[in-house]
Amino acid sequence: MSQLSHSEITALFLALGLLLASARLLGELARATGLPAVLGEITAGILWGPTVFGSLFPQWSAFLFPLSGGGALAFDGLITLAITLFLLVAGMEIDLSTVWRQGKVALYVALLGMFFPFAFGFMAGWWAPGLLGFQQGAHPLAFALFMATVLSISALPIIAKILMDLNIYRSDLGVVIIAAAVFNDLLGWLVFAMVLGMLGVGQMMPLGYTIGMTLVFVLLMILVMPLLLNQILPWVQAHSSWPGGILGFALSFCLLAAAFTEWIGIHAIFGSFLAGVALGDSKHLNERTRTTIEQFVSFIFAPLFFASIGLRVNFVDNFNLLLTLIILLLAMSGKILGSTLGARLGGLPLRESLGVSFGMSAQGTMGIILGVLALQFELISQEIFVSLVVMALVTSLLSGPLMQRVLRLKKARRFVNFFPPQGFILRLDSRDRWSAIHELAKLAGPLIDKTSEEITRAVYAREKMMATGIGQGVAVPHARLPGLAAPLVLVGLSPAGIDFDAPDTTTAKVIFLILAPQDDDGVQLEILADIAATFKVAEIREKVGNVNNYVEFLALVRSARGQ
Amino acid sequence: MSQLSHSEITALFLALGLLLASARLLGELARATGLPAVLGEITAGILWGPTVFGSLFPQWSAFLFPLSGGGALAFDGLITLAITLFLLVAGMEIDLSTVWRQGKVALYVALLGMFFPFAFGFMAGWWAPGLLGFQQGAHPLAFALFMATVLSISALPIIAKILMDLNIYRSDLGVVIIAAAVFNDLLGWLVFAMVLGMLGVGQMMPLGYTIGMTLVFVLLMILVMPLLLNQILPWVQAHSSWPGGILGFALSFCLLAAAFTEWIGIHAIFGSFLAGVALGDSKHLNERTRTTIEQFVSFIFAPLFFASIGLRVNFVDNFNLLLTLIILLLAMSGKILGSTLGARLGGLPLRESLGVSFGMSAQGTMGIILGVLALQFELISQEIFVSLVVMALVTSLLSGPLMQRVLRLKKARRFVNFFPPQGFILRLDSRDRWSAIHELAKLAGPLIDKTSEEITRAVYAREKMMATGIGQGVAVPHARLPGLAAPLVLVGLSPAGIDFDAPDTTTAKVIFLILAPQDDDGVQLEILADIAATFKVAEIREKVGNVNNYVEFLALVRSARGQ
Repeated sequence: MSQLSHSEITALFLALGLLLASARLLGELARATGLPAVLGEITAGILWGPTVFGSLFPQWSAFLFPLSGGGALAFDGLITLAITLFLLVAGMEIDLSTVWRQGKVALYVALLGMFFPFAFGFMAGWWAPGLLGFQQGAHPLAFALFMATVLSISALPIIAKILMDLNIYRSDLGVVIIAAAVFNDLLGWLVFAMVLGMLGVGQMMPLGYTIGMTLVFVLLMILVMPLLLNQILPWVQAHSSWPGGILGFALSFCLLAAAFTEWIGIHAIFGSFLAGVALGDSKHLNERTRTTIEQFVSFIFAPLFFASIGLRVNFVDNFNLLLTLIILLLAMSGKILGSTLGARLGGLPLRESLGVSFGMSAQGTMGIILGVLALQFELISQEIFVSLVVMALVTSLLSGPLMQRVLRLKKARRFVNFFPPQGFILRLDSRDRWSAIHELAKLAGPLIDKTSEEITRAVYAREKMMATGIGQGVAVPHARLPGLAAPLVLVGLSPAGIDFDAPDTTTAKVIFLILAPQDDDGVQLEILADIAATFKVAEIREKVGNVNNYVEFLALVRSARGQ
Repeated sequence: MSQLSHSEITALFLALGLLLASARLLGELARATGLPAVLGEITAGILWGPTVFGSLFPQWSAFLFPLSGGGALAFDGLITLAITLFLLVAGMEIDLSTVWRQGKVALYVALLGMFFPFAFGFMAGWWAPGLLGFQQGAHPLAFALFMATVLSISALPIIAKILMDLNIYRSDLGVVIIAAAVFNDLLGWLVFAMVLGMLGVGQMMPLGYTIGMTLVFVLLMILVMPLLLNQILPWVQAHSSWPGGILGFALSFCLLAAAFTEWIGIHAIFGSFLAGVALGDSKHLNERTRTTIEQFVSFIFAPLFFASIGLRVNFVDNFNLLLTLIILLLAMSGKILGSTLGARLGGLPLRESLGVSFGMSAQGTMGIILGVLALQFELISQEIFVSLVVMALVTSLLSGPLMQRVLRLKKARRFVNFFPPQGFILRLDSRDRWSAIHELAKLAGPLIDKTSEEITRAVYAREKMMATGIGQGVAVPHARLPGLAAPLVLVGLSPAGIDFDAPDTTTAKVIFLILAPQDDDGVQLEILADIAATFKVAEIREKVGNVNNYVEFLALVRSARGQ
């Protein structure tokens, strides 16, 4: 049995560990500055790849990320598995009923939002392939179709993430965008399957066969399979150990679907994506099982895949500004024009139509995945690949802020954003609410350049109007202060409990002092809502008594709400 | 960049999907008949390997499980990752403080339980290597040390599982066994690291270096790292998104530790095991994060690894009865003798000492993992490998029943074990408790060959003594019946709710009718406790109104308690 050598295993694990650690680290940094995490993850790969690390330390790079041999093959297998599992999760996020429910508008947005960039891409790819960096020897029709697809496909996971960040994922507008994106992606993958078929990637069967079987497979997976799974999943869960039975079933189902689509000549990820759609649609897939799969895949396998993108090419040497600008222009103009038109035809007002189109314009993940495949099959050059990655990064970057601007949205603000390390008292000395407020106000004074008396007075005034114990052991004394630039949140813990006259008669063991600017734009209410939601989680209330310092308190409250 | 070909990817995914599905299926079958799941998982691999599938369909086998080429290397990389992650989870299950807390007894059991089989194995391997199938060319001292280690190491994951099944995991006796097994495994791995070093597996550094660095690494990971992690983990969780930050950190930590131990000349799994010990010991590793890792690894990666064992050799051709019996005898006699002696010296009575020794005698997983490595490095022949796997299977099989017998334990019985498909009414017609009992009794009659009147009478009599509404929407009318061979549980749902006079004044929406034999050995109480525990889970109470049939009801209640 062929086996990896000792040094290949060493290199493989070291490479995986370094890639994962740096991808997650830069992903977190990206988030901290308000950018999508995927940007940081891709950047980590670019740093480790031939662009930076590879050109600085070519020998180390050859050891860690070998281009050939057993280590390279094992790495390729792992990354293929990673992207296949990521597509499973992306598929699971899709709610097919949403697609049908939002009906007319979503359909218009999807069709027109797809048609324009598709047409732009196809025309450019067909009539001016040189402009797009077409290289001799590639299949001209496949190339034009590929350019059309990659410019018209959207980035479902990124879009979903942006909508969640903006707090409009479940709103009518959010549902329109998601439904349109789902429809868009399904169509895009179907066209891409045809492209792969044309390239004879399968080589196992003729093109007509591939396309026919793809269509049958798609219909089977989105129409028949959800019904079957509604019978199968409860049966599996009823007759096997939990959650092993259902996890094993879901993953084998995904792997077999992936093997099938790979076999009929389109890529494995197409099968796992549809397996995800079918599984995700079943109300019988337990929420906890879903979470286990999603978390492990999203935070382990996905970062590894996105980081691996940067290992493939040198992003400096292959950067072609003109090509990148052309691709960016075609993609964004087509998508925004088409989607706006579609939303208007569907009856939305102009401003909302523009919002929808900006939402649809994020073309990150899926475009890159197609690009990776096209690069592997030598359909596109490294220059186009780099341009596609840059296009994906730029559109994903712009989408959120543009939508926010045109729809006049604000990101939901969390209390942790305004809670400095100096604003924490592990054990309040106070035994009643008035002195507790004063104790926290003394801490707040220097942080905002006010006297503690001024703060105390404002908070007392508010507290006298109505007590601020909100129950479940939490109190939220607060006030607006003139001349404050940003909100400030302080926390004091009181193991003994302090009476804040809460409706449920519990004493408060966690006391928040919330100071907001005088011209409050609603931030105070958002902070209060965030605190209430955080302490609704029983686990948080139970464990808050065990924390020993600011960092542990922060770690605990962060785990209450995924963010 | 070397990449897997289209047909290699097809074969890889197909092989993974088939292996996972069959391993989980046979694993579930094994559990259903009361055996450890790992037995079924290993059997699945033997069926797919050269023993059965490979000799029946050699061409298909060569396609699915190639012995060389890119597919084989990618598969090897994945399986190596799988076992590395499994050892991370095995390490996370270890609670170092337990080891120190149970002090004397555990230490005696560990040391003597290790010493005897180690001595037996070493003497046999050194003075009579021929008897153990020593093959020319192997390193004699390494061989003797390997036999000693493999016969003396215990199977922590299996032992933990058996103790949980017997419901004594948290009992004093259970803690002694676990603590001894942990100590045993740590020692065993240390010796095995030396064996690997002797074989020059590392080839990167001399043996003295390997042993020295191993010792330093072990001390670092079990003494220093837990303290460091208690600082680092809250910090990571406080400053990153949840649960992405902590998941990414834990997995990169594991991969880097694995790369390190592989580099210093011992296997990657040693590093991930210790990384798991260090991580698992931290109280700051959130329970949900832990669960995500454990579930994904235990139910996806572990079955793949255990199934892959059977792919390595032909278990029929290489089966040597004499060798197997010798190994079995040495392993069990040494372990049981040593552990019993240790427990007696530690002050336990004879019966409990025997129980401890039977608990320690499960030598499944770890032994096999060592065997796989030894086979790879050609230290042992295929015949010994087969004998080791059989020994592991047999000892794991015997351990539970022997312990049960000598400690006079019973497995906890669950109501689902006595709840037939015919015993379910989706919507009770009844509006009061007396007619509800009668309605369920009519259903029960034919199932146990009694008239419904007889049943009704007995249950009414009990119900009149005291109402059986236990609150939270559940009622449990019950009775003992003469001549009943086994308990019977029936369930009726009542969306409108029926008053069973519960202490919390809720009406019952789920009514259990529980019929137990006259000479009840406590099963009725166990069933009642199980029902109460199941419906303590809020999610179960919320969702029980949505089930549409028996299978969905069963699926729901199974998910309440992992089993």
